[in-house]
Amino acid sequence: MSNPPTTTSSGRPRVLILGCGFGGLEAARKLQKADVEITIVDKTNHHLFQPLLYQVATAGLAAPSIAAPIRLLFRSQPNVTTLLGEVTQVDPATRTAHLADGSRLEWDHLIVAAGSTHSYFGNDAWEPMAPGLKTLADAFEIRRRVLVSFEAAEVETDPVRRRALLTFAVIGAGPTGVEMAGTLAEIARHTLEGEFRRIDPSSAEVLLIEGGPRVLQAMPESLSQRALEQLQKLGVQVRLNARVTSIDATGLQIASPFSDGGAGLGSHRIDCGCVVWAAGVAASPLGRMLAAATGAETDRAGRVKVLPDLSLPGRPDISVVGDLAAAMSHQPGKEPTPVPGVSPGAKQMGRAAASNVLRRIAGQPTEAFRYRDYGNLATIGRNSAVVDLGTPFGPMRFSGKLAWLFWLFAHIYFLIGFRNRFVVLMDWASAYWSFQRYARVVADVRAKEKTE
Amino acid sequence: MSNPPTTTSSGRPRVLILGCGFGGLEAARKLQKADVEITIVDKTNHHLFQPLLYQVATAGLAAPSIAAPIRLLFRSQPNVTTLLGEVTQVDPATRTAHLADGSRLEWDHLIVAAGSTHSYFGNDAWEPMAPGLKTLADAFEIRRRVLVSFEAAEVETDPVRRRALLTFAVIGAGPTGVEMAGTLAEIARHTLEGEFRRIDPSSAEVLLIEGGPRVLQAMPESLSQRALEQLQKLGVQVRLNARVTSIDATGLQIASPFSDGGAGLGSHRIDCGCVVWAAGVAASPLGRMLAAATGAETDRAGRVKVLPDLSLPGRPDISVVGDLAAAMSHQPGKEPTPVPGVSPGAKQMGRAAASNVLRRIAGQPTEAFRYRDYGNLATIGRNSAVVDLGTPFGPMRFSGKLAWLFWLFAHIYFLIGFRNRFVVLMDWASAYWSFQRYARVVADVRAKEKTE
Repeated sequence: MSNPPTTTSSGRPRVLILGCGFGGLEAARKLQKADVEITIVDKTNHHLFQPLLYQVATAGLAAPSIAAPIRLLFRSQPNVTTLLGEVTQVDPATRTAHLADGSRLEWDHLIVAAGSTHSYFGNDAWEPMAPGLKTLADAFEIRRRVLVSFEAAEVETDPVRRRALLTFAVIGAGPTGVEMAGTLAEIARHTLEGEFRRIDPSSAEVLLIEGGPRVLQAMPESLSQRALEQLQKLGVQVRLNARVTSIDATGLQIASPFSDGGAGLGSHRIDCGCVVWAAGVAASPLGRMLAAATGAETDRAGRVKVLPDLSLPGRPDISVVGDLAAAMSHQPGKEPTPVPGVSPGAKQMGRAAASNVLRRIAGQPTEAFRYRDYGNLATIGRNSAVVDLGTPFGPMRFSGKLAWLFWLFAHIYFLIGFRNRFVVLMDWASAYWSFQRYARVVADVRAKEKTE
Repeated sequence: MSNPPTTTSSGRPRVLILGCGFGGLEAARKLQKADVEITIVDKTNHHLFQPLLYQVATAGLAAPSIAAPIRLLFRSQPNVTTLLGEVTQVDPATRTAHLADGSRLEWDHLIVAAGSTHSYFGNDAWEPMAPGLKTLADAFEIRRRVLVSFEAAEVETDPVRRRALLTFAVIGAGPTGVEMAGTLAEIARHTLEGEFRRIDPSSAEVLLIEGGPRVLQAMPESLSQRALEQLQKLGVQVRLNARVTSIDATGLQIASPFSDGGAGLGSHRIDCGCVVWAAGVAASPLGRMLAAATGAETDRAGRVKVLPDLSLPGRPDISVVGDLAAAMSHQPGKEPTPVPGVSPGAKQMGRAAASNVLRRIAGQPTEAFRYRDYGNLATIGRNSAVVDLGTPFGPMRFSGKLAWLFWLFAHIYFLIGFRNRFVVLMDWASAYWSFQRYARVVADVRAKEKTE
């Protein structure tokens, strides 16, 4: 190691974990029985089950169903201290992390799992008009905008403004964008049926705008095609190869052909009441800060390039995992392949980094990270999803209702905490039969500060 | 009637209901089968089950469990149009209500059920430091402050500031104040047990500050005494006859003797991390506006004095119900008695006002309102509550675990919507056995704008 680890008065190595998403959580859990002192720092008080965040944004689930208090998760792991705080600076020279409140935390081993945030590709001015979906606060804000748009349309007397209020645009056709668009279409067609007296909610238009040539580009082409068909069946208007050129308070401008092969090449103005940004992610700013301080490199998305064992060049005491890491998967006798930015990748990296910490403490050589790809799945809406499983016998691909059930139970299985699982299952069962979404509640209908 | 009612093109009388709390909701439901056109306007998109709002504030329930979308409640009542909006002015001369968005609503019959808000007795500057508990936004803000206080204490190194962060003050010992204080004590003693490494949450102090000589003054003295004993058993420090003289960012000043008969007469400074205001309610500003426009009188709390049939003097087309009304209960052969500001009162007034609307439409004389008092109950915390029932055989009073079970099932029974009932029951069952509170989630830990 470049410099010998200091230790605590207790003599136990100090492991500092920044961030309690999938990567940080799994790293700390992997160290459950280890004779170390773990400190985990997060900006929020909860671990968020991100794959279902769109359900909170679309009023299908209450926030506590997909968020568990971090302290509760580590209650029975006495070697973990949980701190609510924001890391403002990391100083490798002194092995110290600085928090916003002025306090400092020293480490012998640092695992950085700070994740990612939205990227507006340099158009940060768009954020207030087109919120992304990363945090519970984001989800509440999107829920507010969607529900208030329908409410405003019921009050609105001008037909043009009313039409705009009933137009919803989702930008980016990755898993989140596809899930958002499909669910918004369901809400308009089914959930709100019969509740309005002046408007017909089913006349709402849901647009899914994608810059690339197909939806779900991480998926095989055949499944992208199935997903597109299922979206169109739900009434979603999909615009492929469509570039957003501007977003303002009342709508957006896109340059595109219509995916449905119809007319209208070139630039369109679309007036809409609600825009959701699901297009780009960028690594946490902590990545570049860390790179600058350690001489590590970052990729275009700001992710930190790590060594095969997930540590930084020349800094075996510092590992980066999850969305913040530009990591490769190493299989014996094969070319390294990039690890995708999905939750299983983050979990596996977290566990691997923790295992390597234990190896270092034991004076053993570290191991290269190998990503196990169990496949890829995305849901589109009621009864429809696409699944691409990697099996020992080769890929297994299916879509439709069976895929949807598979998606449903896979997500419930991985939800943290039995109670949540049970409640989510119940909510979905009742939602399935009633077409209802019970969390259609807005605490404060007033527009939020742009800072939020 | 002072002036003949106009009618709609459909010829059906227009009933305008302002506010969808207990009073407004029951009024609209009472008119379910009536040949009228009902419009109900509310500032939020949900009907709130206020008696359980403290459970959301103390992280025991998720917001959707006690809030139902107003449109969903009236989905199968076609004579109701629901509008999200804020009434800025009521003009009796033209029988028109003005909304913040500029739209206007005419009425043939107006039922005003705008409810009440907090009163800081002229010290409105206290509000940012001591939020009240009336809306879901209030509940989220109190939840945030309570949970973040414990988090900040875990990070804090200065023992004096740490002690202050672990001191919680509830001002006002009515039902809400008693419920808040009892639950906060439970959270400190049980819920957070074993989750912190640097502080002992059970060392937190919960103060309940009451200006009057006893807690739950609406209750018989014997039950107030039982409630006091149960609060003290839970570890709540109750200060009776204590007047708050100032509140600032770091604590408050009270003039009081200690209720426990100990030393310390006179003025005390109490540094605390979190202050909850449960002391005063004031009628919605709409009350004075309406009084000024119609010549009706208001009482000191700003409630509108109504005639026996709940209408306004000289304005049979305008009724006021719920917390906004200073109403009397009229029993044949008895002196009129004031109607208490509780949810059963609001519900009964709403139904009575609606019935009188139907009588007017039918050309029949209206009936005087009679309040049926089914009793009074309040919970203090786990296993403890006080119940005062009015029965044909005279009052029936009990406390302790039986009273708590009675309170529990009474509240679940009156919850709107089966699903909510079931979920709440389940949440409470799991909370009861595990001592856990599953909604310990803060969307955004940053301090809110003072405007919120």
